[in-house]
Amino acid sequence: MTNDRYTEGLEKLREIDGEAGQKVMDSLKDIAPDLGRYIIEFAFGDVYSRPGLDLKSREIATVAALTALGTAAPQLKVHIHGALNVGCTRKEVVEIIIQMAVYAGFPAALNGMAAAKEVFKERDEKGQS
Amino acid sequence: MTNDRYTEGLEKLREIDGEAGQKVMDSLKDIAPDLGRYIIEFAFGDVYSRPGLDLKSREIATVAALTALGTAAPQLKVHIHGALNVGCTRKEVVEIIIQMAVYAGFPAALNGMAAAKEVFKERDEKGQS
Amino acid sequence: MTNDRYTEGLEKLREIDGEAGQKVMDSLKDIAPDLGRYIIEFAFGDVYSRPGLDLKSREIATVAALTALGTAAPQLKVHIHGALNVGCTRKEVVEIIIQMAVYAGFPAALNGMAAAKEVFKERDEKGQS
Amino acid sequence: MTNDRYTEGLEKLREIDGEAGQKVMDSLKDIAPDLGRYIIEFAFGDVYSRPGLDLKSREIATVAALTALGTAAPQLKVHIHGALNVGCTRKEVVEIIIQMAVYAGFPAALNGMAAAKEVFKERDEKGQS
Amino acid sequence: MTNDRYTEGLEKLREIDGEAGQKVMDSLKDIAPDLGRYIIEFAFGDVYSRPGLDLKSREIATVAALTALGTAAPQLKVHIHGALNVGCTRKEVVEIIIQMAVYAGFPAALNGMAAAKEVFKERDEKGQS
Amino acid sequence: MTNDRYTEGLEKLREIDGEAGQKVMDSLKDIAPDLGRYIIEFAFGDVYSRPGLDLKSREIATVAALTALGTAAPQLKVHIHGALNVGCTRKEVVEIIIQMAVYAGFPAALNGMAAAKEVFKERDEKGQS
Repeated sequence: MTNDRYTEGLEKLREIDGEAGQKVMDSLKDIAPDLGRYIIEFAFGDVYSRPGLDLKSREIATVAALTALGTAAPQLKVHIHGALNVGCTRKEVVEIIIQMAVYAGFPAALNGMAAAKEVFKERDEKGQS
Repeated sequence: MTNDRYTEGLEKLREIDGEAGQKVMDSLKDIAPDLGRYIIEFAFGDVYSRPGLDLKSREIATVAALTALGTAAPQLKVHIHGALNVGCTRKEVVEIIIQMAVYAGFPAALNGMAAAKEVFKERDEKGQS
Repeated sequence: MTNDRYTEGLEKLREIDGEAGQKVMDSLKDIAPDLGRYIIEFAFGDVYSRPGLDLKSREIATVAALTALGTAAPQLKVHIHGALNVGCTRKEVVEIIIQMAVYAGFPAALNGMAAAKEVFKERDEKGQS
Repeated sequence: MTNDRYTEGLEKLREIDGEAGQKVMDSLKDIAPDLGRYIIEFAFGDVYSRPGLDLKSREIATVAALTALGTAAPQLKVHIHGALNVGCTRKEVVEIIIQMAVYAGFPAALNGMAAAKEVFKERDEKGQS
Repeated sequence: MTNDRYTEGLEKLREIDGEAGQKVMDSLKDIAPDLGRYIIEFAFGDVYSRPGLDLKSREIATVAALTALGTAAPQLKVHIHGALNVGCTRKEVVEIIIQMAVYAGFPAALNGMAAAKEVFKERDEKGQS
Repeated sequence: MTNDRYTEGLEKLREIDGEAGQKVMDSLKDIAPDLGRYIIEFAFGDVYSRPGLDLKSREIATVAALTALGTAAPQLKVHIHGALNVGCTRKEVVEIIIQMAVYAGFPAALNGMAAAKEVFKERDEKGQS
């Protein structure tokens, strides 16, 4: 069954994060491959695969949380990609980040917007929406 | 125009937070009414009234962020009410909070769930969905 | 295999957290039993069951982290119990918390110490070390 | 010399925190008196006794930081007392807390204001400004 | 009236942050100009323009909070400039940051000091105090 | 006696942090040497020199806390060196960081692992274990 969780998680990870997710896994290969495996099995296989909340809403939640926390710039970038990959528009991403000024202050929103700016540029260069 | 922002914000606050929002305003009346006014004008009049992201998605973002931050239990309760008031199901609220275990750890999710439990009980007692 | 993770995790949870862990599971039963299941399967079945770090060291890490974060008082209490259950002395728990003043400031250490005080009292009443 | 640091710190603690500071020390007596001693020696003897920034400015900094962090409600209350004891007006305390909405979000400001409200009430009851 | 808030805010922003503030606005121009507008209208037009706390004290509060939070290095640099622009001495800035070791731990103070060091160097190069 | 605290702290700093500790002191020399002195006297002279918890356990606590906080990457690197210098294995460091996914979320663990990776590489280049 672990295999099923892994398989389902990997599929979900690819659907959401695309190559950004693969890069995270690669970076863990030599030092802590099990941490990568837990991300696939638990985060994507168990949690993101749950019914009851659509993927777009899940990515809205994640972009909001990571912007508010302010301690996870690389992961925020991965999930801004993810949000756009599963159906959010750039405008929606910008709105989520603006809204975080209310709950976590303007610096959190400014730093979140800097992450969005980098992601949008990366996608422009690849012709992605 | 401040008046317009206030009027629009108050309407939005009532739509989202209902009486929970009013209680927050009341608690500020004697000590810092301007802080209450800014919440109405800026948070609800400026931000929540923006086009580009629907209210349900905005509340998903807020519930996620406040659960992840872990420093805002009273406000999280207000916004779990808010999420339910603008169209989230209880199941969706529970899903958002479970997902925060991935990004902010299990204690954040557990404390968020405790807030949800209190809100659900309050609503049960009033016959609210 | 999920069954194995669950069984191993439950055993580990009982070894570490004793009845405090059971109370957490009970509190989730009606609202989000899957969150409880993930704690057993992932936190205790996957992570705490890993070789490479002894349980006492794992609890030292957890008490330190939860004291420093300052957003998880109920979970800190559970893990102070846990630390004492797997071989830490009260003196060692006090030392970990004092040390957090250096990394997270005195308020974090003071609030951690308040949690330790409650736990020590609970254990005194039950004649636990 | 430790004695000098302790003596100077205790004097400073009394000047700033009054009986609220003494209560913190008392609460540590049975569990970690050395943590109390470090607060006196390091926080008050070393840091607050430094020239280069007046006590009122130091308390403004502390009230701001503890409001923004949002994890230190008991210590925030102590330092709102402290700010008022060394020359801040209630109005100034309210202004600092409102300003934190900009840097740490509205929930931080709301929870800080709740602390201020309790402190002001305690002082009203004792006829303190 | 929005115009008045904007005009007053922009003036205040220029008084406090100088060109550093302008750079923040510029960086938002293409992605989220409204976020920049809210910073001017709300943060500077509404909050910093309030009577009841002088600008120097406001900047002391902000430098303290951003140092303690530890998630806002770029904004901390802007406000160390701001503090110096409205009358703080470098020595006072250093004192605020040292004091944060007490409330948010030594890493927060060390990272705050690194920001101060960069700002002081930038100002040395421009012959600013 | 301050001299004794300084001497004992400096010895402890060298034992734990080696040259990484010295670099921190050097970076403070021109801007805030007293902050460096407090780190030596208070953090290392007072706290790390206390009996009641062995140095290896102290470093486990610190690596866990700094990974969980997520705001102290440079200090986390210093203390991963420290942990390895006082007897932790690389495997143990990796285990502590993986465990933090449970308490502070996967982004905290991923960023902690990136710090570990850099430290391990630095040590490989110097032939250190």
